[in-house]
Parts: sequence; C-alpha cells; structure tokens
Amino acid sequence: MKKHNFSAGPSILPRSVIEQASNGILNINNSNLSLLEISHRSKDFVEIMDRATTLALDLLNLNNKGYKAIFLQGGASMQFLMTAYNLLENKAGYINTGAWSTKALKEAKNFGNAVEVATSKDANFNYIPKNYSLDSDLDYLHITTNNTIFGTQFHDIPKTNTNLICDMSSDIFSRNIDFSKFSLIYAGAQKNMGPAGTTLVIVKEEILGKVSRTIPSMLDYKVHIDKESMFNTPPVFAVYTSMLTLEWLTKIGGIKSIEEKNIEKANLLYNAIDSNDLFNGFAKKEDRSLMNVTFNLNDQNHKEHFDRLCLEANISGVNGHRSVGGYRASIYNALDISSVKVLIEAMNQLNKLV
Amino acid sequence: MKKHNFSAGPSILPRSVIEQASNGILNINNSNLSLLEISHRSKDFVEIMDRATTLALDLLNLNNKGYKAIFLQGGASMQFLMTAYNLLENKAGYINTGAWSTKALKEAKNFGNAVEVATSKDANFNYIPKNYSLDSDLDYLHITTNNTIFGTQFHDIPKTNTNLICDMSSDIFSRNIDFSKFSLIYAGAQKNMGPAGTTLVIVKEEILGKVSRTIPSMLDYKVHIDKESMFNTPPVFAVYTSMLTLEWLTKIGGIKSIEEKNIEKANLLYNAIDSNDLFNGFAKKEDRSLMNVTFNLNDQNHKEHFDRLCLEANISGVNGHRSVGGYRASIYNALDISSVKVLIEAMNQLNKLV
Repeated sequence: MKKHNFSAGPSILPRSVIEQASNGILNINNSNLSLLEISHRSKDFVEIMDRATTLALDLLNLNNKGYKAIFLQGGASMQFLMTAYNLLENKAGYINTGAWSTKALKEAKNFGNAVEVATSKDANFNYIPKNYSLDSDLDYLHITTNNTIFGTQFHDIPKTNTNLICDMSSDIFSRNIDFSKFSLIYAGAQKNMGPAGTTLVIVKEEILGKVSRTIPSMLDYKVHIDKESMFNTPPVFAVYTSMLTLEWLTKIGGIKSIEEKNIEKANLLYNAIDSNDLFNGFAKKEDRSLMNVTFNLNDQNHKEHFDRLCLEANISGVNGHRSVGGYRASIYNALDISSVKVLIEAMNQLNKLV
Repeated sequence: MKKHNFSAGPSILPRSVIEQASNGILNINNSNLSLLEISHRSKDFVEIMDRATTLALDLLNLNNKGYKAIFLQGGASMQFLMTAYNLLENKAGYINTGAWSTKALKEAKNFGNAVEVATSKDANFNYIPKNYSLDSDLDYLHITTNNTIFGTQFHDIPKTNTNLICDMSSDIFSRNIDFSKFSLIYAGAQKNMGPAGTTLVIVKEEILGKVSRTIPSMLDYKVHIDKESMFNTPPVFAVYTSMLTLEWLTKIGGIKSIEEKNIEKANLLYNAIDSNDLFNGFAKKEDRSLMNVTFNLNDQNHKEHFDRLCLEANISGVNGHRSVGGYRASIYNALDISSVKVLIEAMNQLNKLV
C-alpha cells in the first residue's frame, strides 16, 4: 500500500525517477553494464554530468550569465567551510535563521571575521529577521532561504551590494525567484533534487580567486570548475539520479509550473491547520515555508490519537524535529497533493473523534 | 550478452550486489519506501550504517583494537588533505609511487613540512622503492599500497616506528595482511567496496587530537567518529551498496578466500603475458599488482587487431591510462576468473593470427 512520505530529507522523489534509477543500476544505456561499474570518464557518464549541469542552469535561468554549475560531495555542511575558505578575506555577514545557518556561521569563523548580522533566535527561529543594517565592507552576506527544521522561508530576498551567498538545500527548484541575485547558491541534493551524496554549487565565476590564502585542491571551487566536476571520481549515482529529477522537472513545466503546485499544496495544508481548533502553526504566518509545514497540537493529550490516525492512513515522516517538537510535514516538489489531502483528512478525523 | 568488465574504477561489483542495490531503490526492507527517500536517522538506515562499519572492521580483523571505521565523502582526494589537516604537525614522510601519492604529497604541503622519502619516478613508477632511510621525527609515513595506474603494489609493508598512513583505495579487502600495522587506512569505495560516492576511513583513535591547529568540523575525524558517520547526511546509497558488498565478501569466506582467488587470477594473466611474445608487462615482476595488470604490445601495429579481438569478445575497460599507454586489466574482487580466461583467449587469438 502506498506510503504518504512527508520525510524532511532524504525525502520523496518522483516515482518515475526512482524506477529509472533502479534500472540504470542494472543496465545503463543498454550497455549491459551497471551505471555503478563504468568509468566516470566514459562517454555514458560524461554525458550524464553535462546534462545535469546544463539542466540545473537552464531551470534556474542562469545560462550565459557568468555562472558555473558543479556537483560536489560532502553536503551543505562541507559548503559551510568551502564558502568561507574561498570567499572570506575581511568580513562576512550571516543572517541566522536556524540550526543550519548557526552551523554555517560557526564554520566560517575558522577562516576570519564572520558576523551575525541578524537572528531570530529570540523566538526559537519562528520568523525571518527583517530590520537590520549591513556593514558596507562585507565580502559576502550569507542566508539560508528555507529553514527545514523551523518551517520558515525568506519570501523577500535581502537587498545588498555585496555578494549574496545562499544555502538553498531545502527549496532550490521549488519557486520562481530571480536567481541572478545570488553570487553563489549551494544545495544538498536530498530534498528537491536527488538522493543524498551530492551537492550542487552554482557560482558566478568572477567572485572567485580574490582571497589571499592557499586553498587545498578539493576545497577550491576553481579546481572543480576547471575540471567540470571531474577533478576526482564524482558520486556517479547521485549525479545520475539528480539528472533524472531535473529532467522530470523540466518535462512537467519547470519551476513556474512546480511553484503553482507547491503554493496550492501549502495553502491547503496551512488553511487546514488554521481552521482546525486542535492545531496551531509554529512559524509566523508571513514567513511560512512552502516546503516544511511545522505545526503542533494545542493539547498534547491528543498526540497518541493523532499518531495512530497517521499510521492508519500510511502517513510517514511527520514527526517534528526535537528542537521544535510537534509535527512537520515536508511537502517537497515530488509530493503529490493527494498526500496532503490524506494528511488533512487525518487532522479532520481527529476533530470528529475528540 | 555478458560484458567482461576490466574497468579500473568505478569498476565491477558482484552481480548479486547490483541486483540487491537496484531492489533497495524500489523498496527497502519491505517498507514500501525507496532507500533514497527515508531519513538517515531512521532505524532502517542506522542499521545499515552500523552493519557496514562492523563488517569492515571484522573483515580487516581490527575489531577491539582501538580502531574506528567511518564512512565519509569526497573520495581519496579529500583524504589527501584531511590526513594532513588532522595529523601533520612537524614533518610527514611520503613514499611516492605514482600519480595518487604525488597528489597526496602535494595537498599535505598545504599544511606543513611534507617530505618525499622515496620515489620511483625515475622509471615512470614501474617499481616500488625499497632502500630508503626514514627520519626519526616524522608525524607519520604515508604510502599508497596499490598503484592503479602503473600496476605496482607494496608486497612488503614498510617497517616504521611512526604512524603508518595508507591510501588503500584500490586493494583494500583483496589480500590478507596485518592491517594493525596501519594507524590510518583510507579507501574510496569504487574498486573493491561499492559505488563511487563514499570513502571508508579506518583510524586508530589514539593518534587523533595531537595537532595544534583548529580543524573545521567536516574535516575533523573526531567529529565524524563521535557522530558515527552521521554528523551530516551521509551518502546513503553508497554506504548501503558498500554494506551489501561487504556482506557478499563475508559470505564467500572473507579476505583469505578472496586472496586465493585474486592470486589465481593474477598468476594466470601474468603468465599469459610473460609467455606470449607479442606482449610485455609494464611493472617490475617483484612489484606486480594483484589488482591492476599493466601490459603492452611489443609492436604497436597489432593494436587495431587486438582491440577488435577484445571488442568481439565483449571485453571492456582494458585501455591503459594515458601516462602508461598500452593495456590495463583491472581484476578486482568481483571479477570472475572466467573473464580473465576470455582476455587470455583474445591474446592467444592474436598470436595465432599475426
């Protein structure tokens, strides 16, 4: 029986992608070889890498604008240090909107003067800071567009004269914004792009090569750009499956089309929370995420009951993160609206029963 | 029709592992969820990670000897810098036996005084250096046990009083040596262990925490050990498939059993090269690798002919690396002896035809 998978990440992927990925492991391009056992320098895989990077830039409308796309390893956590290693010379500003930006700031401090420009820690990160001033001498400003744990999201991208650097792990490819506002975007694959094991980095080439420190090869964006993500053996399977997901997204109409669906799903679920006396939303309404819907029961005595209703409805992955508690429904690109309706039905059931 | 896959890496995996990996992507542990879309904190995946690390230590006979096994990202290339970042305080020695140890030495120099103790560069790395002296003040000595490109292998592990650090990417789990001679072993998965995308690091805990520099979290072995390879989202699929391969190896009798098979395959192929007037081996006989057999035609005019014979016999991946030329047959754990016989038959065919 079909599961309704609201996992925060690794998370749901399109079923067609999962089937293609499974087949590619048995036999890639009718070669009678598994994708896993061919050289990454082979024609078959070089084409996969080229196609994945091209699709990523096309979907974000960043082709021919001075950007390069590379597929790296180590997740967003490796980017916390790589961004600073490559770009922090004098001072960098961080807007701290949760656990991940806290970590990004901590790692940057290994490399220089990284400053917390604003934070919403005073309210357990349930909102996006809005009124803050930026020093004029920043090498870059770093933000996390969507905060998976707390369910908040930047709806207005900060205006700044310096380079805007962004962890977009949990909302890349989900909504139509002007991506050229960013000088560097990074995103772990395991939400809207593919399986865990690769990280997409999109970087404006002109911002590189400006720091005075020596950068080890594997941590140097320029090295990976020059070698087209093949400085060493790339994570072949994760890149292949990311390519399949980007193909799927392109085929169904790209970011504009998926944004409409994501807004529809989010509106439906937030309305259900707001109109149900048993539940309350965690994030401030104006900062609510389109990807991660955080909510809680007003009365914890209903928890056992609601958990059982979810279980019976084949709903999985809705437990909230320990730092927020309650529930978190992650409604990424690949989650169909029918799953959202099943969750709402469980919430309504609880209402009838208590 | 079955391919005989001699690819140097990513390379052949057991067919049963490929089939299980393909199935796990469709449905893991009868959960009706793909391995790719479950949380890495879920019971299903935590068990996979535990089992993979336990199997690795068991197979190497390193359980209860002060070692920890962790699965990281970034390949051996990331280990070139991580080993130095974590361990190089005053001076480190490197035995340079080819392209990979050259790179390891280069990256270590970013962090301190890394010295080339010995090299076989004078003969295009076709042998393993044997007579050299080691300074008494080394933090560690670094070797590459098997040299994929040149087809050489350390048959005697160097004796040293300092920590022995080893890149074992292309011969881990292939032969029975005393692994407790090493303080740290690292290996990219994509030869004898699994798909590209994860790196196994086995480290004696007592050697860590001795350098004075601050280490960014993602580059700090202690962080990954403390978090049991879950400091951040691990490369789920690559770890799962590695676990499957380690299960397969355990089931067929472990390293002692596979070593016998590997010796049999290598002897067969080297004998065929030595007894065929048309071919010559590249590596010095006493340093020949059990994993990568490098050889060439005595007369390049036969190349087109031999390439066609290989193609007709469904042999793939035997082109030599550009820095050596000729041919390279990689005969890793998962390659059956029947494939070696097919290659030898093609060599004999050439002999009959010219």
